[in-house]
Amino acid sequence: MANGKHKVVVVGGGFGGLHAVKHLACGAIDITVIDRSSHHLFQPLLYQVATGGLSSANITAPLRAVFSGLAGVKVRRGLVTGFDVEKRLVLLGHDAVPYDTLVLAAGTESNYFGHDEWKNEAVGLKTIEEADEIRRRILLAFERAEWEPDEARRRMLLTFVVVGGGPTGVEVAGAIGEISRATLRRDFRNIDTALARIILLDAGKRVLPAFPESLAAKASAGLARLGVTVRTGCVVKGIEPNRVVVAARDGEEVIEASTIIWAAGMRGSSLGKALASAAGLAVDSQGRVPVQGDCTVAGHPEIFVIGDLARFGADPGGPLPALAPVAIQQGHHVARVVRRRLAGRGSHPFRYRDGGIMATVGRSMAVVDLRFVRLAGLVAWLAWLFIHIMYLVEFEARILVLVQWVWNYFTRNRSARLLSSCGPEH
Amino acid sequence: MANGKHKVVVVGGGFGGLHAVKHLACGAIDITVIDRSSHHLFQPLLYQVATGGLSSANITAPLRAVFSGLAGVKVRRGLVTGFDVEKRLVLLGHDAVPYDTLVLAAGTESNYFGHDEWKNEAVGLKTIEEADEIRRRILLAFERAEWEPDEARRRMLLTFVVVGGGPTGVEVAGAIGEISRATLRRDFRNIDTALARIILLDAGKRVLPAFPESLAAKASAGLARLGVTVRTGCVVKGIEPNRVVVAARDGEEVIEASTIIWAAGMRGSSLGKALASAAGLAVDSQGRVPVQGDCTVAGHPEIFVIGDLARFGADPGGPLPALAPVAIQQGHHVARVVRRRLAGRGSHPFRYRDGGIMATVGRSMAVVDLRFVRLAGLVAWLAWLFIHIMYLVEFEARILVLVQWVWNYFTRNRSARLLSSCGPEH
Repeated sequence: MANGKHKVVVVGGGFGGLHAVKHLACGAIDITVIDRSSHHLFQPLLYQVATGGLSSANITAPLRAVFSGLAGVKVRRGLVTGFDVEKRLVLLGHDAVPYDTLVLAAGTESNYFGHDEWKNEAVGLKTIEEADEIRRRILLAFERAEWEPDEARRRMLLTFVVVGGGPTGVEVAGAIGEISRATLRRDFRNIDTALARIILLDAGKRVLPAFPESLAAKASAGLARLGVTVRTGCVVKGIEPNRVVVAARDGEEVIEASTIIWAAGMRGSSLGKALASAAGLAVDSQGRVPVQGDCTVAGHPEIFVIGDLARFGADPGGPLPALAPVAIQQGHHVARVVRRRLAGRGSHPFRYRDGGIMATVGRSMAVVDLRFVRLAGLVAWLAWLFIHIMYLVEFEARILVLVQWVWNYFTRNRSARLLSSCGPEH
Repeated sequence: MANGKHKVVVVGGGFGGLHAVKHLACGAIDITVIDRSSHHLFQPLLYQVATGGLSSANITAPLRAVFSGLAGVKVRRGLVTGFDVEKRLVLLGHDAVPYDTLVLAAGTESNYFGHDEWKNEAVGLKTIEEADEIRRRILLAFERAEWEPDEARRRMLLTFVVVGGGPTGVEVAGAIGEISRATLRRDFRNIDTALARIILLDAGKRVLPAFPESLAAKASAGLARLGVTVRTGCVVKGIEPNRVVVAARDGEEVIEASTIIWAAGMRGSSLGKALASAAGLAVDSQGRVPVQGDCTVAGHPEIFVIGDLARFGADPGGPLPALAPVAIQQGHHVARVVRRRLAGRGSHPFRYRDGGIMATVGRSMAVVDLRFVRLAGLVAWLAWLFIHIMYLVEFEARILVLVQWVWNYFTRNRSARLLSSCGPEH
């Protein structure tokens, strides 16, 4: 490897890492991408996998395949265990990978706000494995309810609680509404799936706090039409098997629910903290690494942190949100800075071009704030669909996802509702 | 449930069970389908899932969705634990489902011929879970080889052994050949994936013993072109982690291989034995339940056994082979007999209409014996493709699988090569 080329190590193959590599790659730079999984995940559609609308393979692309045409790019599937910023090494257990420039784009994980013991009961939605687990629980709840003689237990089985009213919570709750009201309706004989209770809990005043109030109100109305009960001002106090305890305005309350989904918040990957400590810095309350105007870490111009794991800027309006477009633009920015430096020029500040935000509500409605215009309803959903398909990384996935969606749209079918076999314990 | 209707319980939602239900369903009969998984599996394409060409969802259909339009059909996901043939009950743990007619179509599982301890090392290919595990092992072997400094270990990682030269073994070995010689070739930097050794072991004289010798020879030649070494007359003596011990003509030999796939044989599901004992019968050496000319069990005209689990006929040429068309036709036959009996008429014997057999070798070759004509090469592959797509149960799956195949064919891509994240243990 001592070929004299500039060595860039990118940790994380999400939107930030992927776009950094794509724009950096050229024969003259040695790039190593390290990720603990082997694929890039199109996270905005993960809720579709969790609710049986798409298969895992539809929204993932093998990192090796994505980078196979790019000269000088190596992919390594492995678990980063730490950093040595003095010797400029990324540590993987007993192994170490040297770098001249480090790009940390390791993303976030679910934040249980000090209650990691809730993790088993309330599954987060950040990885393919979690999406598969949520799908398994949702489908299994209907299966069990179909043959459950006890009415109270049946009611518990058919209650789904989604914690967190951001875009992910709204999208998951809406999709469960679709499943129970339309997709599964004809499939069961002993239960009426449309009687399933879907409860979206949020501690704040309204859902979608990042959106204009008018759009949030329309999203709430859309959720209600899908049978989702939105309960704002509800703080979760405890989560146990099949039970959520909430403190609402009028005291404590227990909700019996077989399926609990956690979409209440994110915190930076533990690699952020590891890097920050190594560089003599501290992460913020959400575990994000503070970065400077050019996305580098103070005192280490050779270290970039980008995407959801970076805390970029403070004013006006606080740090940049955890959105794919931010990560993509920062990845592109890092590539530009590294290239400029290699050409002997200095770095320049990152500026976010805000294209807007969007969220879907069920199968034919979305709310879209493009900043210059606000849309809600079918038109917004079509805009959402178009933008998401255009973003998809691999050509094939794009076509297949489109075919599958068009089909699902007209048939209300969800072919990917696969449930694994039951073992001896049922 | 005591509505006076005739009660049919079908155990197993494979080809036999599915077609029995489809042809039986009408408002006048109460049908309960019990399966330990929630989906019908299109088993002939399972090897494509194991080798990353298709996703699980492409070749499965939720049983509830398949039967949702049919009156009087209930689906129950559960584990059958036994039978009470006197009281006419199917037992599910503490629960029991009564029947007037029982159709047992529980299929087969991998047969390790008294060496069940080989199961962990040599994965069979009967279920979606096994296919996922085989895919994981194949992809992981390449990932590990890419960063393995030791040459002997790298050679071991890049050695794939397939035990059994029937259609499944030939198809899996050919697909691994495709992957290593074409799909993955550009994705790795440190290893040449085309140097992977793929060894197909069979104890007999040649591969595809059920096929005419001329077609088997063409299949062998096709495998050789894909880099597969076919070794006939090789008896497996032992399987340990990363090692296969074989007794060949010239003594014992150890093959070091990271990935071992078991396609050497099938035996009837343990439910066959449970039912046979309850009915005072014995299963044959492959665990199959002997059935009479109308597919019923001796002494129990109300019990049918169909598909791979049934041993039907003995001459000429031995019992019927374990093929989807046999199961499909027997399912149809059972439906006809039950309907005739309800109309006050007797049963009639089953006759198999043999449409032929086929197997693929890689991405553009197959061998097809349609009895009136024998084909090998691209034409055979197109025939194979056409027939398999037409068989697929759900319309959507059919279209999507076709799109994906056409895409894969022209790009040699395998988008479904998804590998889950590595945990702390790597």
